[in-house]
Amino acid sequence: MSTRWDHRFAQRTQRMTSSAIRELLKLTAQPDIISFAGGLPGPALFPIEEVREAADTVLQQHGRKALQYSTTEGYPPLRAMICRHMARYGIVVDINNVLITSGSQQALDLIGKVLINPGDKVLTENPTYLGALQAFTMYSADFITVPMDDDGLLVDKLEEALRSGPKFMYLLPNFQNPTGVTMSVERRREVIRLADHYGIPIIEDDPYGQLRYEGDHLESLVVGDARWRDCHTHGKFTGNVIYLSTFSKTLAPGLRMAWVVAPEEVIHRLVQAKQGTDLQCSTFDQMVTYEVGRGGFLDRHVHRIREVYGQQRLRMIQALEKAFPDPSLGVRWTRPEGGLFLWVTLPEGIDTGEVLLEAVKEKVAFVPGAPFHPGGDGRNTMRLNFSNATTEQIDEGIERLGRVVTGLLERKPTAV
Amino acid sequence: MSTRWDHRFAQRTQRMTSSAIRELLKLTAQPDIISFAGGLPGPALFPIEEVREAADTVLQQHGRKALQYSTTEGYPPLRAMICRHMARYGIVVDINNVLITSGSQQALDLIGKVLINPGDKVLTENPTYLGALQAFTMYSADFITVPMDDDGLLVDKLEEALRSGPKFMYLLPNFQNPTGVTMSVERRREVIRLADHYGIPIIEDDPYGQLRYEGDHLESLVVGDARWRDCHTHGKFTGNVIYLSTFSKTLAPGLRMAWVVAPEEVIHRLVQAKQGTDLQCSTFDQMVTYEVGRGGFLDRHVHRIREVYGQQRLRMIQALEKAFPDPSLGVRWTRPEGGLFLWVTLPEGIDTGEVLLEAVKEKVAFVPGAPFHPGGDGRNTMRLNFSNATTEQIDEGIERLGRVVTGLLERKPTAV
Repeated sequence: MSTRWDHRFAQRTQRMTSSAIRELLKLTAQPDIISFAGGLPGPALFPIEEVREAADTVLQQHGRKALQYSTTEGYPPLRAMICRHMARYGIVVDINNVLITSGSQQALDLIGKVLINPGDKVLTENPTYLGALQAFTMYSADFITVPMDDDGLLVDKLEEALRSGPKFMYLLPNFQNPTGVTMSVERRREVIRLADHYGIPIIEDDPYGQLRYEGDHLESLVVGDARWRDCHTHGKFTGNVIYLSTFSKTLAPGLRMAWVVAPEEVIHRLVQAKQGTDLQCSTFDQMVTYEVGRGGFLDRHVHRIREVYGQQRLRMIQALEKAFPDPSLGVRWTRPEGGLFLWVTLPEGIDTGEVLLEAVKEKVAFVPGAPFHPGGDGRNTMRLNFSNATTEQIDEGIERLGRVVTGLLERKPTAV
Repeated sequence: MSTRWDHRFAQRTQRMTSSAIRELLKLTAQPDIISFAGGLPGPALFPIEEVREAADTVLQQHGRKALQYSTTEGYPPLRAMICRHMARYGIVVDINNVLITSGSQQALDLIGKVLINPGDKVLTENPTYLGALQAFTMYSADFITVPMDDDGLLVDKLEEALRSGPKFMYLLPNFQNPTGVTMSVERRREVIRLADHYGIPIIEDDPYGQLRYEGDHLESLVVGDARWRDCHTHGKFTGNVIYLSTFSKTLAPGLRMAWVVAPEEVIHRLVQAKQGTDLQCSTFDQMVTYEVGRGGFLDRHVHRIREVYGQQRLRMIQALEKAFPDPSLGVRWTRPEGGLFLWVTLPEGIDTGEVLLEAVKEKVAFVPGAPFHPGGDGRNTMRLNFSNATTEQIDEGIERLGRVVTGLLERKPTAV
């Protein structure tokens, strides 16, 4: 009886990510474990009181509206607030270019739904965000990847990949998940030029853009693309880039509030797709988000987040330098200028899945890097999150992890 | 430039519902129009104060949790509350059989994602819920339909349809959207028997089950199926039915809180699909829904909703009897025992799209029935919502609509 459904599931479900990693990560939910595994914001920074006041105001003043159905596109004042916010970063659009989504994950799903035909190729950085791979895989996409270095994807490898005709390229230029790497200005320009030359659209995923702890803000691809094609001259935003961002890292992920920026014709299709997918996002959460943000609170709040996460990032780098094997043994890590993650590469032949098994025994966890690689490489890599642990936990956790890695390197000298 | 995206959209988007009706319905958003078009609950019944108190409690007591990421399956106390609620209707499952979704619309999308291969056939009542057609169409389903009468779908036509091998059947046994019709006990039994005989699963969509204004509750298909196969004997819920319900009609649709009940193996796939789709529903809204409901408030509240909607339904039937052409002229309407809608059939040859154009001039609106018919028939039908208008608006609106219909019938005598 228990298998009566087995033969009924659609073919696409057979490509759903194996749950091996997920099962492993369930072990990391033990309360006494120090986890660098998730991508969770630090809960001590949540503006609980501000959200409470906003929820109160929304229900007292607009209760009937907040609890009723509303439009698929999203709450207009929230979309207008997002436009004002983005304009300060040079992204000049109007509310008809903005769709509210249930987290950026839903934006990825809807983009897959409206753009990907089965067998279409999607170009990504290698490694790339696991959630994007999951979303696009459900629409039977294949992946072409372009390797990265510390300045982002290698544009001299990009042109060849573009010639193979991907449907679009999916890029995270700022403090990439999982590597923490930022794409340089020169490479951004070259990506925009090549995308235009080959007529390949860009999906620019920018969840962490505001969380920069050092260096200057770099212009988004969507802005560079607009300048390149001067597409605003007719008053309309038409371009080659679909831009995604979110309130999950600057306000709170539990509200599932994110947005897509795109030319109107793309928004129109995404809206149609969202109607069949979930009708609309929570009216209440949209109005609460607007109420929290409308007076400028989020700008002040982001300053505070930057300060705290910036310290945690430094602390993790220092702890790695202290506790991890010498770089001469082939152990490297990135030094992100922002975001939530840094990325460790161990010598070839070390499997970070095995490292995780050992690490969990020492009550410390991370995410093995292999699943972020569409091609199945990267078994010697790992992602470390620094936003969800205290500085004490960072010191202690990295020390434990350093012991595990050192131990494994000593037992496997041939791997070095 | 404005068409640079046109050729990029996936084939499935070309099957997205034409927006002709939607454009027409935009006209009905004028404030001075009496609209029977939406499926909106009456906002005067929203328990605003209870939601406000619940939001306050959740943020004061569990703020960090409410604003953080949480599991894809949904907030466990909310799922447990749903189990207790359903047990009173004979649906005996545990929380591993329950997934929280962003409205039932998302449940339909996820079901499409995990069950439908391109070209699979989905069996529906004719007419059926438009949102289900939209959701399943995105996974390239074809539709087989079975006609209905006042006792629900015609089971003597069902067997032939089942022989053509649909992937599943999608049914709304209680106060169906759009017709308001309820499937009789005898037909429910026969549907369960035939589904089992042909090995075809049932998707039972039950958004309105609690909103019954007359007659006795009829056992859900999921309960009848469980008894039929005695599937609880091994302590596990395994069956042939996926059951959907929602808080949208008993609490508030703006929170987008609904749920799926299914065997664990199905829930497991739905959870994987939801991970790639939007990760999870709003943690905050889930906790607020639980907080509102946990003391039994929703039971009391549903009594009040039944009373009010029951009166509105009666009022609309009375208004139709008074203002609409005599049934001898071929005009019929259903007399729903619950739910939000009733269904009017005009004589063949009358196009309710044209009726709507005339009606909007008279400042009254409804939804033409054709889009609810996968086969494109039903051009002479219309759906009327009675939950979102006051009794005065019902009297006035039906009178106006009666004038329009009478006028059209008189101008098209050959159609009668």
